[in-house]
Amino acid sequence: MIDFNTIFSKYVALANEAADKYVSEAAFGGRESVGLTKMLEVMAYSLKNGGKRIRPVLAMEFCRVCGANYEKALPFALGIEMIHTYSLIHDDLPCMDDDDMRRGKKSNHIVFGEANALLAGDGLLTLAFETVLSAPDVSSEAKAKAGLELAKAAGCSGMIAGQVMDLANENREASLDEIRETDRLKTGELIRASAVLGCIAADADEAKIKAAEEYCECIGLAFQIVDDILDVTSDAETLGKPVGSDSANKKSTYVSLLGLEKSAEYAEELTKRAKEALKIFGNGGEFLALLADRLLNRKN
Amino acid sequence: MIDFNTIFSKYVALANEAADKYVSEAAFGGRESVGLTKMLEVMAYSLKNGGKRIRPVLAMEFCRVCGANYEKALPFALGIEMIHTYSLIHDDLPCMDDDDMRRGKKSNHIVFGEANALLAGDGLLTLAFETVLSAPDVSSEAKAKAGLELAKAAGCSGMIAGQVMDLANENREASLDEIRETDRLKTGELIRASAVLGCIAADADEAKIKAAEEYCECIGLAFQIVDDILDVTSDAETLGKPVGSDSANKKSTYVSLLGLEKSAEYAEELTKRAKEALKIFGNGGEFLALLADRLLNRKN
Repeated sequence: MIDFNTIFSKYVALANEAADKYVSEAAFGGRESVGLTKMLEVMAYSLKNGGKRIRPVLAMEFCRVCGANYEKALPFALGIEMIHTYSLIHDDLPCMDDDDMRRGKKSNHIVFGEANALLAGDGLLTLAFETVLSAPDVSSEAKAKAGLELAKAAGCSGMIAGQVMDLANENREASLDEIRETDRLKTGELIRASAVLGCIAADADEAKIKAAEEYCECIGLAFQIVDDILDVTSDAETLGKPVGSDSANKKSTYVSLLGLEKSAEYAEELTKRAKEALKIFGNGGEFLALLADRLLNRKN
Repeated sequence: MIDFNTIFSKYVALANEAADKYVSEAAFGGRESVGLTKMLEVMAYSLKNGGKRIRPVLAMEFCRVCGANYEKALPFALGIEMIHTYSLIHDDLPCMDDDDMRRGKKSNHIVFGEANALLAGDGLLTLAFETVLSAPDVSSEAKAKAGLELAKAAGCSGMIAGQVMDLANENREASLDEIRETDRLKTGELIRASAVLGCIAADADEAKIKAAEEYCECIGLAFQIVDDILDVTSDAETLGKPVGSDSANKKSTYVSLLGLEKSAEYAEELTKRAKEALKIFGNGGEFLALLADRLLNRKN
């Protein structure tokens, strides 16, 4: 039996170290300006503000289970985390969700103003591609393929399409299919890309990439369902954020559409399917199977 | 003697056609969603709203003078134009320059609202990399290199650094060095990247890339100086936008710092240097030499 927590913490520590490195002046030697100095401060504030780092963990572990050193996938992992971070900065802006707080700290635009937050989001989105495309130890072919997969997952046919649909779903009764499609695009696509980029870093074959995608689709959807369940069953202290916000916003959720019991069954079923997709990796898939269980049984 | 206008129009027509194609549903076959449909409408509004298309023209012509078919550079050219367009959409937002009009039409956020304009900017920025990285007829190596150059030019050490500096220069007396550095980053870097990506599409050697960069640095700076001169010497009808806005905003300009005569001499000197940089291309550089002259002598 592997030590899940030790492995997970190792990946998170690597991601955090790399986050520090990629938004430091040293990473931009020869390209210094007062504008860069300011942007690095604003971007670092959000990129270094924790989060679960699930996406970098997925990228590195899929790289490992596909037979390569997990550190090969680190620049790809950070590129994905930069995309995730930029989307949160822009989501929090007044013209979007207008959130003053993020992960228990003031939102980026509350600290640095809207113009800087807007530009820092743009900067992280752009830096994501710079990071992926300057990854050492991977071929040009793998870099171009990884950058393209990331652009598709994050762009107007992926994450951004989901954000548009999420805005449109506010204050109306969306169907189960509609919220499933919205979630798949808004959060699922980037989670899927995390695994796929890990596989690409390891030059994995199509069968392994397909399995990685199936695993991610299942855990991504299960994650959203558990979110909806916790919003109803948990308390603010355990969850670390206010509860009951979905029903207050009259937002359709898996719980409002399926009920608590059926939602829990659905999340369990998806977790089972995710673990089945790992068969192609043999014993190597143990960490990812445990991860699926942890995400299902989490309390916050 | 070549027919400048015919060649220029040919490139512009190609760029416009490609702009239509890249933001059509057909380009996203298999990835349709209601979110994508909405985003394509919002992105197309700005991407198709004309502009001089200088950047695509530079990319295609530098590809040609480096010995390849100019159509090879078309996806790179469009990627650059998408970056340029996204920066205008975000620049016009209320938290930035708060401009209601762009090229004689309503700004993107005036037509579609701030949230859609924000997301369309993000979408175009991301689509730029998808477009560059899925270019047919170029090697993975060239695609990865082009994407990386574009990310550096557009990112927090390039265009975005310049935007931050431009915001900081408002309502204060910036020095000549400061405005030159701001312009180099804010507009010069993307113009430089246009030429470099054209060279990369043609697998050009370092000497040609260096020459292309020197040419672009000179015409980019000359372009800004001519802008400042026209803001003082032209009238709104000829210019197609209000004049005197720089002095009204108490903004330091080349004219306010050097005077009209010295500014004109400086722009001429830069145009001369730009044309000298073209020597490496022999007779092939004629169109680019004429382009430098046209940009110097333009009336709007």
